[in-house]
Amino acid sequence: MAPKKGLMQRLDEGVVIGDGGFVFALEKRGYVKAGPWTPEAVIEHPEAVRQLHREFLRAGSDVMQAFTFYASDDKLANRGNESSAKHTCRGINDAACRLAREVAEEGDGLMAGGLSQTPTYLSGLGKEKTQKEFQNQIDVFVENKVDFLIAEYFEHIEEMEWAVEACVKSGLPVVASMCIGPDGDMHGVTAGECGVRMAKAGAHVVGINCHFDPFVTLDGMRKIKTALDAEGLKVHMIAQPLAFHTPDAGKQGFIDLPEFPFGLEPRICTRWDMHRYAREAYDIGIRFIGGCCGFEPYHIRAVAEELEKERGCLPKGSEKHEQWAGGLKMHTKPWVRARAGRDYWENIKPSSGRPYCAAMSKPDAWGVTAGHSDLKQKTMHTTDDEIKALQQKKK
Amino acid sequence: MAPKKGLMQRLDEGVVIGDGGFVFALEKRGYVKAGPWTPEAVIEHPEAVRQLHREFLRAGSDVMQAFTFYASDDKLANRGNESSAKHTCRGINDAACRLAREVAEEGDGLMAGGLSQTPTYLSGLGKEKTQKEFQNQIDVFVENKVDFLIAEYFEHIEEMEWAVEACVKSGLPVVASMCIGPDGDMHGVTAGECGVRMAKAGAHVVGINCHFDPFVTLDGMRKIKTALDAEGLKVHMIAQPLAFHTPDAGKQGFIDLPEFPFGLEPRICTRWDMHRYAREAYDIGIRFIGGCCGFEPYHIRAVAEELEKERGCLPKGSEKHEQWAGGLKMHTKPWVRARAGRDYWENIKPSSGRPYCAAMSKPDAWGVTAGHSDLKQKTMHTTDDEIKALQQKKK
Amino acid sequence: MAPKKGLMQRLDEGVVIGDGGFVFALEKRGYVKAGPWTPEAVIEHPEAVRQLHREFLRAGSDVMQAFTFYASDDKLANRGNESSAKHTCRGINDAACRLAREVAEEGDGLMAGGLSQTPTYLSGLGKEKTQKEFQNQIDVFVENKVDFLIAEYFEHIEEMEWAVEACVKSGLPVVASMCIGPDGDMHGVTAGECGVRMAKAGAHVVGINCHFDPFVTLDGMRKIKTALDAEGLKVHMIAQPLAFHTPDAGKQGFIDLPEFPFGLEPRICTRWDMHRYAREAYDIGIRFIGGCCGFEPYHIRAVAEELEKERGCLPKGSEKHEQWAGGLKMHTKPWVRARAGRDYWENIKPSSGRPYCAAMSKPDAWGVTAGHSDLKQKTMHTTDDEIKALQQKKK
Amino acid sequence: MAPKKGLMQRLDEGVVIGDGGFVFALEKRGYVKAGPWTPEAVIEHPEAVRQLHREFLRAGSDVMQAFTFYASDDKLANRGNESSAKHTCRGINDAACRLAREVAEEGDGLMAGGLSQTPTYLSGLGKEKTQKEFQNQIDVFVENKVDFLIAEYFEHIEEMEWAVEACVKSGLPVVASMCIGPDGDMHGVTAGECGVRMAKAGAHVVGINCHFDPFVTLDGMRKIKTALDAEGLKVHMIAQPLAFHTPDAGKQGFIDLPEFPFGLEPRICTRWDMHRYAREAYDIGIRFIGGCCGFEPYHIRAVAEELEKERGCLPKGSEKHEQWAGGLKMHTKPWVRARAGRDYWENIKPSSGRPYCAAMSKPDAWGVTAGHSDLKQKTMHTTDDEIKALQQKKK
Repeated sequence: MAPKKGLMQRLDEGVVIGDGGFVFALEKRGYVKAGPWTPEAVIEHPEAVRQLHREFLRAGSDVMQAFTFYASDDKLANRGNESSAKHTCRGINDAACRLAREVAEEGDGLMAGGLSQTPTYLSGLGKEKTQKEFQNQIDVFVENKVDFLIAEYFEHIEEMEWAVEACVKSGLPVVASMCIGPDGDMHGVTAGECGVRMAKAGAHVVGINCHFDPFVTLDGMRKIKTALDAEGLKVHMIAQPLAFHTPDAGKQGFIDLPEFPFGLEPRICTRWDMHRYAREAYDIGIRFIGGCCGFEPYHIRAVAEELEKERGCLPKGSEKHEQWAGGLKMHTKPWVRARAGRDYWENIKPSSGRPYCAAMSKPDAWGVTAGHSDLKQKTMHTTDDEIKALQQKKK
Repeated sequence: MAPKKGLMQRLDEGVVIGDGGFVFALEKRGYVKAGPWTPEAVIEHPEAVRQLHREFLRAGSDVMQAFTFYASDDKLANRGNESSAKHTCRGINDAACRLAREVAEEGDGLMAGGLSQTPTYLSGLGKEKTQKEFQNQIDVFVENKVDFLIAEYFEHIEEMEWAVEACVKSGLPVVASMCIGPDGDMHGVTAGECGVRMAKAGAHVVGINCHFDPFVTLDGMRKIKTALDAEGLKVHMIAQPLAFHTPDAGKQGFIDLPEFPFGLEPRICTRWDMHRYAREAYDIGIRFIGGCCGFEPYHIRAVAEELEKERGCLPKGSEKHEQWAGGLKMHTKPWVRARAGRDYWENIKPSSGRPYCAAMSKPDAWGVTAGHSDLKQKTMHTTDDEIKALQQKKK
Repeated sequence: MAPKKGLMQRLDEGVVIGDGGFVFALEKRGYVKAGPWTPEAVIEHPEAVRQLHREFLRAGSDVMQAFTFYASDDKLANRGNESSAKHTCRGINDAACRLAREVAEEGDGLMAGGLSQTPTYLSGLGKEKTQKEFQNQIDVFVENKVDFLIAEYFEHIEEMEWAVEACVKSGLPVVASMCIGPDGDMHGVTAGECGVRMAKAGAHVVGINCHFDPFVTLDGMRKIKTALDAEGLKVHMIAQPLAFHTPDAGKQGFIDLPEFPFGLEPRICTRWDMHRYAREAYDIGIRFIGGCCGFEPYHIRAVAEELEKERGCLPKGSEKHEQWAGGLKMHTKPWVRARAGRDYWENIKPSSGRPYCAAMSKPDAWGVTAGHSDLKQKTMHTTDDEIKALQQKKK
Repeated sequence: MAPKKGLMQRLDEGVVIGDGGFVFALEKRGYVKAGPWTPEAVIEHPEAVRQLHREFLRAGSDVMQAFTFYASDDKLANRGNESSAKHTCRGINDAACRLAREVAEEGDGLMAGGLSQTPTYLSGLGKEKTQKEFQNQIDVFVENKVDFLIAEYFEHIEEMEWAVEACVKSGLPVVASMCIGPDGDMHGVTAGECGVRMAKAGAHVVGINCHFDPFVTLDGMRKIKTALDAEGLKVHMIAQPLAFHTPDAGKQGFIDLPEFPFGLEPRICTRWDMHRYAREAYDIGIRFIGGCCGFEPYHIRAVAEELEKERGCLPKGSEKHEQWAGGLKMHTKPWVRARAGRDYWENIKPSSGRPYCAAMSKPDAWGVTAGHSDLKQKTMHTTDDEIKALQQKKK
């Protein structure tokens, strides 16, 4: 058996499909708590995490990203979170790697370890302390022989550069992906400049994940592409957007929307949205195409089905999904059978069934970001009085 | 250890929470094909079915319903479906029972076997042949010692009466639940009359499942309650609605909506909708409260959280979900922490992020039902020419 | 020259087109105050009232209804209204009749005097006092030789019966029209029963005006038709609905909608809505077809254009409006010329341009009506404290 | 009596309120034909035009703009229009001036003559022929001693410069206003550059009218302001936007929206929108604030009420409109009285009552403009075959 191809070779030769969103999917399944969003499920309920990995593999994901989101020590101990004390950063990152590796080997998947932004940075504690948080995770990733590293979900290019710097030392391929939109990072750096700085920091693949819907994200990616080209930087690109429509989100993305995180249902993208996303992403030249929060296995399957020709195959999961609604030919009702076909679904404008709700929302826009006192994190539980003060501030 | 309490005792003493929808959840996870909607996954991918059962158990479900939807022989062989040939009706129903039993025993769950409407009836082949289809499933359920039987997803009271008649012979408690709305069955029988006829046929619990959203369904249940009271019939009631908003669906429910089944995302209910549903259902006097298509584990958890006082406990899954968004107190962003609280979420009117889509759709209304030639089913694949003819008819 | 045909003959022989809404149109033009809604403009700005009459005549109205809405003494003196003191009931009703007569004679129009519900009734002061208010207006109408009387905008069948009784004594044809929807009057009398009681009280034409949109109104008219037929009552029918979409209005109609009266713009009907309204009204058998609040001249013109064949002519105003958008053939832009034609406009689903607004509103539903202490009227201005108390009550 | 102050002095000293839209208002009243949109009503129905002038004067307009829109010879004879033959350009412009003068003298109003873009330009016939069309109108304006000239509704800065050049020769103050949005003119000239070029061509007041809603228009005005400031150009600014919400309109504005011109109702702005518009316009530094298509007298009154302090007075029409819904204190229903107040109306998000319609539309975007063969105009009627060919092209 030939050795597995690495990330960079796969990107050079074709297209790599990422996985979807773990925190949102596992929150709905009952294993992740919205608020802290930390991944202790890898120890507490490994069967649930393993099953989700498998579903993405089956849907066409080429990458099993270990479920290490927000698994830095400072986050695991933030605002009353007991995961640090109970499970330790090392314990969680290690368990996550082993689960991802196990499922990756059930197919031809690559396995990656991931870093994200830290409370340490948000609280303004400086480069050294921030990089220490990253290093604790990277050490575990290297021990587990991950195929590559992903630094993702960073709102500030400064912290991202520190993360890439730490990752690059491992000698592994480094993917760098910020949670920004076309307007750039929280400190006013443009999207294009963010792309260039990630590449210059040493990332092999650069792009955007989370915070915005596929189409807003691709608007940002076009800016990154233009800036990279202008600088003559030859790196690959990645997009892993939300599966929620966010035309109304401001600079900070869906976090600001009043529906975040428990009322986002009407914004969930259809599989047909994902066909369009995959095609547009590919046409821009992006070769690492995946998803973030809200992306369920069927969304990834739609990406894989759209790129069937480019990949030369359909995912296993398509045995239960004939392309473009072909399975409806087997429906008992004739008017549903009449919906079997691309033309019908490509043009549908789905209704919400919610006549008392508007199409768009005014986002919160507090305008506070790293360095602002309201963003100083702490280990104690937030008190009810603190919540009341914030609610007052909101008004 | 005391023997497990049976369904009827539980209903008499308190409230029983059903599970959610298997076909829609597993379609999104990659294990069920939309169109035929048959449950061969119980043999092909038992780990996926087992995991979903576990998630519902963890979310608070008291009932593990074996995944036997549309698992009658005639449906498993309809329009090119190879599940009958590959797995047989007996094989599928048996595997489904064993999976449900396994998970039920991980908790204090009851296990049930389910029947649904048949192509045999839709094709007008008469009572004897239709009941033969039911009996084949019931035999397996009895062998597997299910705790009770559910006859659900029937559009015609006539076929439902045949099903109840067959079920009652088993000596097990029988739950009967039609997929109707406030306007009654497809042959023009009112909702109230349907309720009465189910009870008179011998069902111990009667009600409505699928086809309509929680609130339309409860409108139908109020009519059933009134009719049962008027007849002095003392039976329990069940509601297991969709988790999709359907104020615009006609008599036949969400099947008729242009978004069915691949564009329903904007209609998905929030967890807060489910709080309201659970409360209203309980107040009507319904004691078997669950969900159907679209109900994910977190929807069932919301039902269980709403009924915490009545049940005397929270579900296990609530360890990852502080009631009414309490977990948001642990969020890093202050404006999100400000959203921790009941008042915020109880009143949210979530936007769709889809300004080019309307709130409501005009449903298809072909007006054909059991007995109509367009509803005659067949074992061969539907041809492309037949699909084209239907699409023409649609216009 | 043959003498003018009377109302009843015209109704027997064909269809009579009413006029549109004066209070809303003149409010927007600057001559009527929203709140009191009284018609002192007939004295203060006769040219404005005359012009609006002319526009309706030109648009196809067969009836010039004198602008005497809410021109009873008790209303002209209610809550600080100075119109009674300044102009007197007699002065206003007389001026209104003369203006309507003047314009009616510019064409082949009939001229009518109108009565509406009174503060006297709402305040529970009894039949005698209420009828005295009516009689004061009727006296002026008779002196001015109106062609017929209209008792319209009554929410309670009881007060309507008192009005019809008073009108009938004049010997003139009497049209009776309540501002109710399919759910009937404010005291719980069904729409059908209201229709029957108006007819039995002696009205020659019965129906519905104001409060609901054309299609909700016609739902109410179908109930009236059924009830009249069941009683074998041979009277003509009238419909004069709003030109605002009100699918979400409760029993009391658009008054209850949060947008009333200064935010109704997005609800305004198009001319194409009015084509459909006119056709459906005619098909129900209604022969007096007009409009109420929101109906501008072009809405009436659309009614007249839809009924061109039935009336044997187009209105004068159609010299500036080729049917079904024919005038667009003269547009300079080719893509606008492409919109010339019935198919385009008959099927348009017009967008609001308001993505932050919902499609439907929750109406106020205070549930207070005639006899309730909150409805006692008074002659003094409402104080700011009273307003604050009401606003508190609203919350 | 002191002589009337001129436009420039008024702008220097305070704020000048323009009037609203004549073609749309008079189309609804029955006197203007949509498609050609020419103003022969000044001869055919002077009473209707005079009444509308009066309503605007009463609402607070300081300017009576003669109704000479599209009254150049080439437009009056375009595509079968008989107004040129019947009434002549001179006849129409002259009658329009006399009506405007008559009403202006009823108050302290200024009177202006207006020019708009020409079929001659759109057909590519060159500067000389285009300016000849302008000159024919200017001659009549000068004879009628208009107080100033308005060159408005130009889509191309080139044609606008030709118009300003012709106007300036008259020695009168010249207002120049293009129907562009923030994206600039149809030939790709930016909004800022358009502003600068109008000023450099000699216009004393420059700005934007028509085509976009108030807020999109003000976005364009901000760009013009910035560009004028950058060039150190000291001219006044004007804004006269639509009263239709157009967030979804492309470069060519509401003409492109599928609802134009017969389905725009749901987009109509409320009076409260106009308060916000007036305030924002004033704050930008715009001193000539009026409206275009869709602006009814009550919209202008709202502008005047918002600017009460700056103008030192309320308009006459406010005798029928207590600011911020004060008149509702006189309403008979208590829940409507509770709506009397600024807070309520300033925050209302009005519903459309149209749950089957979306919030936004995809505009037509044919991308043809001056010089394109599809824009060559002609004097003959458009044939049905030509319309069919266009409809085919649309698909």
